[in-house]
Amino acid sequence: MTRLVGQPVRRVDGVEKVTGRARFTGDLVVPGMLYGRVLRSPYPHARLRRVDTSAAERLPGVHAVLTGADLLDLDPYYGHAVKDRPIVALDRVRFAGEPVAAVAAESEAVAAEALHAIVVEYEPLPIVATIDDALAPEAPQLHEGPLRPGLFHGLGEFRAGPGNICYHHHFARGDLIEAFAHADEVVEGTYTFPAVYQYAMEPHTVIAQWDATGLTVWSSCQHPYLVRAELADLFRLPLDAVRVIVPYLGGGFGSKSYTKMEPLAAALARKAGRPVRIANRVAEAMVTTRGHGMRCWMRTGATRDGRVVAREVRIWLDTGAYADNGPRVAATAADAAPGPYRWEAVAVDAWAVYTNTPPAGSYRGFGAAHLIWIGEAQIDALARRVGLDPLEFRRRNLLRPGEEVRPGGRPLDADLVGDVERAAAAVGWHDPKPPLVGRGVAVGLLAAGAHPVSTAIVRLQADGTAVLLVSSTELGQGVRTALTQIAAKELALPLEAVRIVGPDTAVTPYDRSTGASRSTTLAGLAVQRAARDVAAQLRDIAARVWGLPHEALTLRDGAVWHETERLSYPDLLRRHFGMAGGELIGRGEVRPERGTGSYAEGPVFWEVCAGAAEVAVDPETGQIRVRRLVSIADVGKAINPLLVEVQDEGGALQGLGIALCEEMLFQDGQLVNASLLEYHVPTTADLPDEFQTIIVENGDGPGPYGAKGVGEGALAWVPGAIVTALQDIGVEVHQLPLTPERVWRALQSSPRG
Amino acid sequence: MTRLVGQPVRRVDGVEKVTGRARFTGDLVVPGMLYGRVLRSPYPHARLRRVDTSAAERLPGVHAVLTGADLLDLDPYYGHAVKDRPIVALDRVRFAGEPVAAVAAESEAVAAEALHAIVVEYEPLPIVATIDDALAPEAPQLHEGPLRPGLFHGLGEFRAGPGNICYHHHFARGDLIEAFAHADEVVEGTYTFPAVYQYAMEPHTVIAQWDATGLTVWSSCQHPYLVRAELADLFRLPLDAVRVIVPYLGGGFGSKSYTKMEPLAAALARKAGRPVRIANRVAEAMVTTRGHGMRCWMRTGATRDGRVVAREVRIWLDTGAYADNGPRVAATAADAAPGPYRWEAVAVDAWAVYTNTPPAGSYRGFGAAHLIWIGEAQIDALARRVGLDPLEFRRRNLLRPGEEVRPGGRPLDADLVGDVERAAAAVGWHDPKPPLVGRGVAVGLLAAGAHPVSTAIVRLQADGTAVLLVSSTELGQGVRTALTQIAAKELALPLEAVRIVGPDTAVTPYDRSTGASRSTTLAGLAVQRAARDVAAQLRDIAARVWGLPHEALTLRDGAVWHETERLSYPDLLRRHFGMAGGELIGRGEVRPERGTGSYAEGPVFWEVCAGAAEVAVDPETGQIRVRRLVSIADVGKAINPLLVEVQDEGGALQGLGIALCEEMLFQDGQLVNASLLEYHVPTTADLPDEFQTIIVENGDGPGPYGAKGVGEGALAWVPGAIVTALQDIGVEVHQLPLTPERVWRALQSSPRG
Repeated sequence: MTRLVGQPVRRVDGVEKVTGRARFTGDLVVPGMLYGRVLRSPYPHARLRRVDTSAAERLPGVHAVLTGADLLDLDPYYGHAVKDRPIVALDRVRFAGEPVAAVAAESEAVAAEALHAIVVEYEPLPIVATIDDALAPEAPQLHEGPLRPGLFHGLGEFRAGPGNICYHHHFARGDLIEAFAHADEVVEGTYTFPAVYQYAMEPHTVIAQWDATGLTVWSSCQHPYLVRAELADLFRLPLDAVRVIVPYLGGGFGSKSYTKMEPLAAALARKAGRPVRIANRVAEAMVTTRGHGMRCWMRTGATRDGRVVAREVRIWLDTGAYADNGPRVAATAADAAPGPYRWEAVAVDAWAVYTNTPPAGSYRGFGAAHLIWIGEAQIDALARRVGLDPLEFRRRNLLRPGEEVRPGGRPLDADLVGDVERAAAAVGWHDPKPPLVGRGVAVGLLAAGAHPVSTAIVRLQADGTAVLLVSSTELGQGVRTALTQIAAKELALPLEAVRIVGPDTAVTPYDRSTGASRSTTLAGLAVQRAARDVAAQLRDIAARVWGLPHEALTLRDGAVWHETERLSYPDLLRRHFGMAGGELIGRGEVRPERGTGSYAEGPVFWEVCAGAAEVAVDPETGQIRVRRLVSIADVGKAINPLLVEVQDEGGALQGLGIALCEEMLFQDGQLVNASLLEYHVPTTADLPDEFQTIIVENGDGPGPYGAKGVGEGALAWVPGAIVTALQDIGVEVHQLPLTPERVWRALQSSPRG
Repeated sequence: MTRLVGQPVRRVDGVEKVTGRARFTGDLVVPGMLYGRVLRSPYPHARLRRVDTSAAERLPGVHAVLTGADLLDLDPYYGHAVKDRPIVALDRVRFAGEPVAAVAAESEAVAAEALHAIVVEYEPLPIVATIDDALAPEAPQLHEGPLRPGLFHGLGEFRAGPGNICYHHHFARGDLIEAFAHADEVVEGTYTFPAVYQYAMEPHTVIAQWDATGLTVWSSCQHPYLVRAELADLFRLPLDAVRVIVPYLGGGFGSKSYTKMEPLAAALARKAGRPVRIANRVAEAMVTTRGHGMRCWMRTGATRDGRVVAREVRIWLDTGAYADNGPRVAATAADAAPGPYRWEAVAVDAWAVYTNTPPAGSYRGFGAAHLIWIGEAQIDALARRVGLDPLEFRRRNLLRPGEEVRPGGRPLDADLVGDVERAAAAVGWHDPKPPLVGRGVAVGLLAAGAHPVSTAIVRLQADGTAVLLVSSTELGQGVRTALTQIAAKELALPLEAVRIVGPDTAVTPYDRSTGASRSTTLAGLAVQRAARDVAAQLRDIAARVWGLPHEALTLRDGAVWHETERLSYPDLLRRHFGMAGGELIGRGEVRPERGTGSYAEGPVFWEVCAGAAEVAVDPETGQIRVRRLVSIADVGKAINPLLVEVQDEGGALQGLGIALCEEMLFQDGQLVNASLLEYHVPTTADLPDEFQTIIVENGDGPGPYGAKGVGEGALAWVPGAIVTALQDIGVEVHQLPLTPERVWRALQSSPRG
């Protein structure tokens, strides 16, 4: 039992899930519930001339048709970073797929029929389809007037505009000109990263219900407390009048971070006077959020004796029609741009740019995934130019534990050299290799943990079982299992004796969010503290019974022990309460250690992105085959090695998707591959021939038992290792995904081609 | 705001209730829910020869038919005091109305049809219809083998049997023979108290659902945590695998205390593999529980100079076919038997006796309601015999604050003389009165509070609103309002800024029960402590901000103050967590102060039962008209005077029902008046001409601000004051209710008749 932490125990929600009994939001039926469907704009940019809902409203079974005209009593804009998005289009639509109206009806079929009966007159406007369009001096401006910061901008000073600039992040250190003057070799290039879809199996689903006490929302959201705050703000309610309940999620990967469909469902239910469920179709989910497409210009310089000296980076992120998490993505991309190297000077600018495409938000590993492959491609190229083994080149230049990553921020808390060496060794770095086979490594850092505020409550029941109240959302990542393990270990109970409940903002306490690889580290710490609070109370009671000092007592096997004497928890509670009832309540709190938790204070921990790949290229087709993929899960402490491994594997596969095949294709602002048939995510057929995760446990994380986050890192390093492995063959491609065509073309122009 | 406590604020659930939006268990629909109906025995005592469910099972829409044969994997007996009751009849039925089978079907109609299709062969057995039958030496024995104590017997040593004795409670103090030898006057008599029905507006309703995580029950129960424990015990589950959720209750009055229909609903849902709702009809509720009918023999002696010296009491309570709360009722009746007087000696025996009638359990004020009228009738008679004004007689003999009530138990914590004088004055005790008009007072004590274990959690949210997690059930008594007032006062918040949540055993913390007038006192104390815990954290944060000692700071208007400087709660939380998020968690715990909380330790407080009545009797019909009824609500501190008043009025009216009209009539074990048409509860037509509650606030309760419980006391004194007012006219009746016929007959034989 005391060895619960570190063991590959089975998921606590496994039986529920494999037997089909686990409930997702789409499985719920609230009494009196109506079915909502959304009318979406076919135009990427247009003025709304007229929205006539009268025919739709007359259809039998239709209870409400919501349009912008129903929101006149509200300030109907939301957005946690920038308050730029109306609940439903007001006078203008800014992307193809934007909600123009929504219907609540007795059935999905009636609701769908009603959508056809809504008459909308659009006046098409000139569109801003790409980053280039958006940055053109004469470009139409997507948002008028000054942008307003959202409730959780969280990036210090709010920097937006002019034009279609949603956010600008800049930092520089050292004298860039002088540092580049020290460089003997400089690599420079422009790179393109695709817009990708997060592809959670479950599309966004929300049920909204109003009653005498306020608004209740069941939502497939990752961050119930941030959704609560935005809904309270929109509908002018106190926080405790909004209740957000989150059943299981069928994946998230950032697609369900922050507020998505909740305001629309709430506004529709408000009008209908009945609960309403809106469940996105996949094609709708794909225009609800996506990852950021990017263009990046970067140059990196090194001395001929193998020392990196300077890097300059400019990043343009296509954030679509509304900001969503664009500002944070820009800041995180900028953070990742220097890479974990020792520079004389760096200068980074990152812009999030509005375009007439669906809003881009969070996708697992954002920022780091965007930048690491570019930085590593240039590091790799420089190594080859100065005649050093790329591994040796990195060994010389990588930051060491304790070194500064960002001025004033958290120093490096990982052994990156050890990580990258392990990965390289596992793909047989120095082994001979056949032609058209290359090996690459990639290493980077991801600013992880988000804002470190989490709380938890542990309730020890009269029979010695425990209930854990915590608001981390279970996305499939196994957080319920990991948190249960932590509570069970601290209480010296078997796993089965701890039940986890939440999230439900009415009852389970505050957790800022589930994302940024933060839950095991931060919610885990809150759980550990809450459980230790209960453990201390148990020792106190036993100390009173035995007349011994608190310190002489230990917890083991559901009992407090003094040498060979034991008092079981049920015994202790019976003595404390004088009956077989009562309970002990423990609380745990995590907050920023150094004060504000602001962006400048740096991340809670640096998530390691490191691994190696061996690839082969088919010279006839340009098809890449991944022969080996070795991922480093540098987790500090693996609370559950099995979950770490599958998390890491999942992340690496998603990284492979970005590297090899995933790309949302837009033509004039229209998404043209909005289904799994046309949008290619990796399948088992795309698995590497050898696929391995190496868990590294140096106990250097800030979480319980030295743990730190995992999962996103794996996604973020993979494209870099594939790209550098290609460079090992002499193939240089500056555009992801590495489709056969792109690789084949590059192969034709390569020295080995 | 700081004056929130003591104010007649409106109910926090008022709007929900008057707009019909408040949800009761019968309003809930769980997805996939089936409708359960119960087949009940027509015989009061019979052997089950055969139960054939095959035809019922074949009916379309029927999902399960439950009989005793489905319980072979369990120890299917429950009962918190005595484990004597099978979930559904096994081989024998013991009362008319006992569940023999239950059906779960797609609709109520199909379920009802299926009941008719079940074939049961009964072999009628000789019945034990009355207490006399039960005590006869050759009486058939209702329960074979030794009785087993339940999980919450709570009365120390378990004393049962032989024969049909379910429980025997005895105590004696002093030398009874010697004490009676000092008596110059002795009054002696045998008295009868009716079986009455608690008549909550909402009959018992339960939804049971099994899933991968265990059993969830939505129930109209008063004591969710005790129900949880019994269900866990029955179905062999850990406590945290049983979740009991309690929506609003449409009244309780003890009828929903402990476990009632929950095991049957759970067993039926278990067999059906689907959620099932069972909603009792009124006639079914009346055979599910009721108050105890009683016979009592009592004698009381006094000296000619007006000093009471000795009392001897024997009490036989008809507890029906199963114990339910019979043992506690017997103990409480015994407790109330001496009355709050100074005796040389008392001896009391109380027996709970099994009969072939529906099980009797708790009804508001039980025990005290049974005994006070008898004791007071004898006190009154003695006063008249020794020529003293009954008020003066009481003044001489009543216990004073601090005096011992029960050896080792809580000393008297109320000013009874003051209370009874106030009541007497309010009915114009010494004023002249017309013929056939009488005045009476009654005073007694009720051992209240039950076992003192309650806990609460208070969560202060980022916008300064608070959520209160507490498991007291809202029966209409206004507990949610009172507890919200306490939390709001301690947090210096307006009432609207505090939201109360619960009970839901998965998330809201332990509260032993809602009953025994305990909630404001005990759950209130837990809430006060939890809120003070949060208040201390707020002061700590402000103390850190200002660099001031904790003690220099006060809470006012949602802010912490130092002299004229203030920091609002949202400010403080923002500083603490570095964001507009996070929350402060406070916990509160109440447990027995002197150790075990056992029966012997005495009640948490003595609830005062005191009041006065003026009645007129119609000599032609024997009809009693209540001209004045003045009730003393000696509450220590009225958290909400409006709620105290309506609670007290409700109790007094129920007391009037017992005094004047209520009685369940059994013939050979069959209830013959099982509807509101035949069972007469007081209506507005039965209201006293003048009806007044006087609130007494001496701050002498153990609850927050000196509060103690209220409501039950009013029920318990009323019959006594009516009976003594009748004696003031010279009419002596030893049997309740005081029907016109009984009064008319007594009037014929009275000196004034």
